[in-house]
Amino acid sequence: MADKLIIFDTTLRDGEQSPGASMTKDEKLRIAKQLERLKVDVIEAGFAAASPGDFESIKAISATIKDSIICSLSRANDRDISRAAEALAAAQRKRIHTFIATSPLHMEKKLRMSPDQVLEQAIQAVRFARNFTDDVEFSPEDGSRSEMDFLCRVIEAVIKEGATTINFADTVGYGVPELYGNMLKTLRERIPNSDKAIWSVHCHNDLGMAVANSLAGVMIGGARQVECTINGLGERAGNTALEEIVMAVRTRKDYFNLDLGIDTTQIVPASKLVSQITGFAVQPNKAVVGANAFAHASGIHQDGILKARDTYEIMRAEDVGWSANKIVLGKLSGRNAFKQRLEELGIALESEAEVNAAFARFKELADRKSDIFDEDILALVSDEEQANDKEAYHFVSLAQHSETGESPKAKVVFAFAGKEVTCEAKGNGPVDAIVNAIESEVNSGAELLLFSVNAITTGTQSQGEVTMRLQKAGRIVNGVGADPDIVVASAKAYLSALNKLESKSEKLNPQV
Amino acid sequence: MADKLIIFDTTLRDGEQSPGASMTKDEKLRIAKQLERLKVDVIEAGFAAASPGDFESIKAISATIKDSIICSLSRANDRDISRAAEALAAAQRKRIHTFIATSPLHMEKKLRMSPDQVLEQAIQAVRFARNFTDDVEFSPEDGSRSEMDFLCRVIEAVIKEGATTINFADTVGYGVPELYGNMLKTLRERIPNSDKAIWSVHCHNDLGMAVANSLAGVMIGGARQVECTINGLGERAGNTALEEIVMAVRTRKDYFNLDLGIDTTQIVPASKLVSQITGFAVQPNKAVVGANAFAHASGIHQDGILKARDTYEIMRAEDVGWSANKIVLGKLSGRNAFKQRLEELGIALESEAEVNAAFARFKELADRKSDIFDEDILALVSDEEQANDKEAYHFVSLAQHSETGESPKAKVVFAFAGKEVTCEAKGNGPVDAIVNAIESEVNSGAELLLFSVNAITTGTQSQGEVTMRLQKAGRIVNGVGADPDIVVASAKAYLSALNKLESKSEKLNPQV
Repeated sequence: MADKLIIFDTTLRDGEQSPGASMTKDEKLRIAKQLERLKVDVIEAGFAAASPGDFESIKAISATIKDSIICSLSRANDRDISRAAEALAAAQRKRIHTFIATSPLHMEKKLRMSPDQVLEQAIQAVRFARNFTDDVEFSPEDGSRSEMDFLCRVIEAVIKEGATTINFADTVGYGVPELYGNMLKTLRERIPNSDKAIWSVHCHNDLGMAVANSLAGVMIGGARQVECTINGLGERAGNTALEEIVMAVRTRKDYFNLDLGIDTTQIVPASKLVSQITGFAVQPNKAVVGANAFAHASGIHQDGILKARDTYEIMRAEDVGWSANKIVLGKLSGRNAFKQRLEELGIALESEAEVNAAFARFKELADRKSDIFDEDILALVSDEEQANDKEAYHFVSLAQHSETGESPKAKVVFAFAGKEVTCEAKGNGPVDAIVNAIESEVNSGAELLLFSVNAITTGTQSQGEVTMRLQKAGRIVNGVGADPDIVVASAKAYLSALNKLESKSEKLNPQV
Repeated sequence: MADKLIIFDTTLRDGEQSPGASMTKDEKLRIAKQLERLKVDVIEAGFAAASPGDFESIKAISATIKDSIICSLSRANDRDISRAAEALAAAQRKRIHTFIATSPLHMEKKLRMSPDQVLEQAIQAVRFARNFTDDVEFSPEDGSRSEMDFLCRVIEAVIKEGATTINFADTVGYGVPELYGNMLKTLRERIPNSDKAIWSVHCHNDLGMAVANSLAGVMIGGARQVECTINGLGERAGNTALEEIVMAVRTRKDYFNLDLGIDTTQIVPASKLVSQITGFAVQPNKAVVGANAFAHASGIHQDGILKARDTYEIMRAEDVGWSANKIVLGKLSGRNAFKQRLEELGIALESEAEVNAAFARFKELADRKSDIFDEDILALVSDEEQANDKEAYHFVSLAQHSETGESPKAKVVFAFAGKEVTCEAKGNGPVDAIVNAIESEVNSGAELLLFSVNAITTGTQSQGEVTMRLQKAGRIVNGVGADPDIVVASAKAYLSALNKLESKSEKLNPQV
């Protein structure tokens, strides 16, 4: 029988550390539900001690998700571990993932601890974590730059204390497959009780080899868990992409001979959801989930390619969940049809009042756009969630005009703390004008780093989804807004980014 | 002394085959000049026999580029090879790259030839190509699915005829590093005269392992040439990304021990140019050239990361050409300053009249946008080139208005064949309205597949660069337009896409 390869998704923890990718509790919950549908084995839901927001998100996910193991990261100290255990309390199956740096540089400069102290703390942490769960993962931070002898001592000791998973990270994305795989192999050969734990890989994509490094860790090093994120989200060039690992192992089963628990047809919906919530676009030539990844999906109907489809396509678009946009609802759809579709999409609104509010928005949209797709409903629910926050900026209405030879001008009405504010300005384009108008009242002093628009579906009737990335005082946030009118979508995105800047969410970003 | 790794760029041939990525002669020439600045060893400039456009592009590039070898693809027949030789005639150093399928499936179904006939044709082709140049590359198409014995016979024979490079392709992106590297190793061991040729790898990224497969071909298989494209452009998930190969080999010189001729500081400018011309955006978490690839470049100034920069960054952003957007020109800049900057950017306009026209557009832009960056100048020149085509649709002017509660409306004036056309329409957003307006006159029947906008530089004063991908009768084209007003940019992009649909450029797309 083939071994099982455990898929450990860290979109909500390591992926979220990507500048601008921070998510609200509700957004994380929606992604967690999709990860459950995708049947990932482990969901790293956050780092409980990092911030109250992280704690609450893990708690909500623990109470909701039934099929996946829920994991929280924690430093190797009692406070962090207790906090993780508390957040995970409601989970049916829970994992505590604790880490401590083991490289000479980090021990000396960052921790100011001797190797013996680090060893002792790692032992204590795993022992303490075992009080809360039998499922404890340990990561030696900066492991690939640690001394082999010391690493062997630490890992042997934590396995003896009951660590059930050992995660060997290529934190800076420096690995090449042969070397990384062999480091793992050496560790497993030299550590006498290495067979008592499952070994895990965690790679970054700085040199474009995260997938191959992870799979070398599996084939050469004997790892049976891969840590990864949807769309390869993550700091810098990102983490290992879940969709690439899964489809490589599945497509080349002749070579890898490993079983997976994943429902691959949920890959593209997961990719779209994460991209929509974080505002991180997926490039057309991205493997598996890019718009061009399958000639089939990108709308090509050239004879030659259709005929030769099996000759040139090693995966089928349907198998990863690509499907034509389907018209699901329209102007005449009733509240029941709308509510049912929400449920089919895995969206649970908390009260009937929320369903009513979302339905009202749906009718408003259907007046302006004849065909409503699943993607439109997802965008609408995102908007709705933002509108529920009483202390936030909300879009109310807008008028804008531009004409060759004149300065574009815009008038925006937005609400803040229950009051409507009207503002007007000119700019060198309609988007510049609305930003100038809003800033004339708000004076945020934020700097616009990135601006992008993508159509949610095909056709010019599609809604535009705008991402605006703002920076202020070292913090970076992405605001997202959708509307059939891209100028309106831009106003919504800008207000959404301002809301994110307002929320005080200083948190720790560990470099595992 | 370390061996040299030859970088063979096929952005203009295999990259261009990506649906929507087709480029004009002028666009190809601009990219070729940037590839020369990047110091790539070989530029595959096109497939001369594929279309008159390809032929003319190769001819223009051959006459212009001095430092790189210029290569044309050709099937294994005299006509294709003569055509390639003719297009390459002016090149200082030229290569003919010929190919024929060697897998049982392709020989039987596609070529309807016996293995002996294929062998004979391969021999004849290489012999004929050697009449024109001493630098002949041979690719066995679908090589990885060919029978080893037959492959050995064919390759031994073509090396005997004088093929100087043998390119082993993973056409469908099915390879895993260990297997792909070992296939190449076996070939080189079994073919008695294998040391008389340089071996090359050509991988596709369908499973996310193109870079690792290529480098396994180098380390295990002994290849000394890598075929790759800027941004990994190419069909489906694309080709091997040049920037990832180069930075992996450079950053891990301790392991690869290979020399490169590349000027890495030209990587990011090359990436931006290719992205701008083709309309294929680069995702933020793309290795090396993504906006987030370096925390440094994405605008983060968190203390921890700055202090620990060496700890977490294995490459320096400056080394690959990331630099802050620099204000280069403004409203008061004169014609000389403008012309000089064009030259520094490697843009050679053909006549003084063209410089004057571009300068007029520059002044117009500077009236609307206070700071002009290099990126703005590049966008302006793209526009200018399109405007030179007398038989094309040109944007003239636009007025548009949208207001909450009303249908957005737009009036567009464009020129076609010397005549100005005015049209008006409503839509569910300003972009939909301008498309409806234009279509009310043009009736193209094209379908909009993708719509995206990216800001060219940071700040809301930035120009928006719009890409619209249209499909009609199986053909897919990308139109690109830039303007500080994204509605105007959308109109320009739509007209540009219509122009590309008009141009009759049926061409062959070989699957090497």
